[in-house]
Amino acid sequence: MAAVAADAGVDLRPHVKTHKSPEIARMQLAAGSRGITVAKVSEAEVMADAGLTDIFIAYPIVGRSKLERLCRLARRADIRVAADSWEVVSGLSAAAAAEGVTLRVRLEIDTGMGRCGLQSPAEAVALAERMAGLPGVELSGIMGFSGQSYSAESDDEVAAIAEDEGAQVATVARELRAARFDVPEISVGSTPTSIHAGLMGGVTEVRPGTYVFSDRTMVALGSARIDDCALTVLTTVVSRPTPDRVILDVGTKGLTSDTSPLPGYGFVPDHPELRLTELTEEHGIAHVPEGYDLPVGTRLRVVPNHACGTVNMFDQLHVVRGEQVIDRWTVAARGKMQ
Amino acid sequence: MAAVAADAGVDLRPHVKTHKSPEIARMQLAAGSRGITVAKVSEAEVMADAGLTDIFIAYPIVGRSKLERLCRLARRADIRVAADSWEVVSGLSAAAAAEGVTLRVRLEIDTGMGRCGLQSPAEAVALAERMAGLPGVELSGIMGFSGQSYSAESDDEVAAIAEDEGAQVATVARELRAARFDVPEISVGSTPTSIHAGLMGGVTEVRPGTYVFSDRTMVALGSARIDDCALTVLTTVVSRPTPDRVILDVGTKGLTSDTSPLPGYGFVPDHPELRLTELTEEHGIAHVPEGYDLPVGTRLRVVPNHACGTVNMFDQLHVVRGEQVIDRWTVAARGKMQ
Repeated sequence: MAAVAADAGVDLRPHVKTHKSPEIARMQLAAGSRGITVAKVSEAEVMADAGLTDIFIAYPIVGRSKLERLCRLARRADIRVAADSWEVVSGLSAAAAAEGVTLRVRLEIDTGMGRCGLQSPAEAVALAERMAGLPGVELSGIMGFSGQSYSAESDDEVAAIAEDEGAQVATVARELRAARFDVPEISVGSTPTSIHAGLMGGVTEVRPGTYVFSDRTMVALGSARIDDCALTVLTTVVSRPTPDRVILDVGTKGLTSDTSPLPGYGFVPDHPELRLTELTEEHGIAHVPEGYDLPVGTRLRVVPNHACGTVNMFDQLHVVRGEQVIDRWTVAARGKMQ
Repeated sequence: MAAVAADAGVDLRPHVKTHKSPEIARMQLAAGSRGITVAKVSEAEVMADAGLTDIFIAYPIVGRSKLERLCRLARRADIRVAADSWEVVSGLSAAAAAEGVTLRVRLEIDTGMGRCGLQSPAEAVALAERMAGLPGVELSGIMGFSGQSYSAESDDEVAAIAEDEGAQVATVARELRAARFDVPEISVGSTPTSIHAGLMGGVTEVRPGTYVFSDRTMVALGSARIDDCALTVLTTVVSRPTPDRVILDVGTKGLTSDTSPLPGYGFVPDHPELRLTELTEEHGIAHVPEGYDLPVGTRLRVVPNHACGTVNMFDQLHVVRGEQVIDRWTVAARGKMQ
């Protein structure tokens, strides 16, 4: 991904929600990332404590406690934060002014996902104009996130979404510049679309997350091959109640209920015949051809539908080389409420 | 639930997977539970450390590390464990004999869910006969779990499933007794079916979990009313990008992707007009009637689809009385790998 970003001439600022682990964030920086992206103030705190101090919080921060923590953090780390409304911008301003810091703000643009974000270039210009008079905040750019790419049916469709997103943020940037605002940073997200950064002229930064491990969803989208998937859940066959049914000791509390464009809840590279059709909390219900050799006690690695959700279920990652556990990394930024 | 069990003349042994908190397990014992149920050896260890020592591990334990821990635990706690195969039974036996303990084993019967469990009374008798010669294990009863009740369409259908489960385990117990086995314990699970314990003649124990909080699924099944739901996720409106769209700061990493028979991902009692239609990792995408008064900064409590999965996302429960936080309980048994 660092090579893709370098080829496209954009910064890479990976979203660490996928791993929540300072060790991996450091590897991403060493591989050429400019900084990191997080979703919460508490995640930013964990990363800053570990020496990762160039942080974009890609989330509208609302509420006194979070704002106070954000501004204290801005004293010791290089913070950017998202906003898409007057309420958020004015909240950031009041908190920053009280703490005596200046927050760099990126306006979030809804590029078609239908989640957060300003709905038009005119809305972005209007918010930038209201914000210009506020203390403690300065406009540093804009951000988009085209999460609709996760339901694309092919990599061509992903590429079209990326190109469209690039055109949309470019339009917003152009209108902001026409209104005499400086827009140094134009940031977009998602692993599938970041691969097509070269199609997004004007974009200065990509924020992919999942690429660091890849998962079954990325494989379905054509953004990765199954051999690229570095995150697996080790599980054991604990029951073989019928000739065609196998029960694994992992369920939604390990693999999540997250779905992917492919049927089922995970892929077992060593036993591609196995179909993991249903999960309950601690059981995986799988089907195999009748008589398939898979006795109780067999250990299997499952590639999850969604790496980010799966990591979030555990407190530790076991780092393996071949069959050997060579390290354990803490999922230090999970379980945070703020 | 304690009153329901007492009325039906059965023991209550709640499954603590719902809360994973010793504090709540102690309240359940104080309210009349006989002991607790867990899914993992590691969960049993956490509970035993907290003084909760009458534990049924309703799971087939496979693998040397888990078996060794199980048998060490059996030295200091009163342990029962499930099994549904010769591989599991012989593994329990070997580990127990090595540690010099005796494990009480309940044979698991598949009562129609299609997960773990012996498939017929004849299979149960055959496994009991093979087990009779093994050291370190003694048959203490049978267990069923009719999780298919969670997809029932009415409480009448749940009652029919409960009655059928009761009949099935009674048949297995009768055939085991006819083969001269003692079957003192006949245990069945699930909140919806346990409410109908009175329909299950011969059953000696119920193992409901979710009832302790209830959730949107229990409401959908007619097993609880919305006012019974004691677990909510406190969330804040962080964006109002369009007149009919509201973004909450909780997504699948708080509410899970677990579905319920009702549409959407949660219910907001104070704003029943709000439809929480989609979750991404850290965002809840909700819809309200156009112009509905719900500004950025509003705090909402969301009743989740599935209490057990939701608790598992967090390290702490905040205990509230009215609007006041009166305590914080640790979700001590979450995040365990064994």
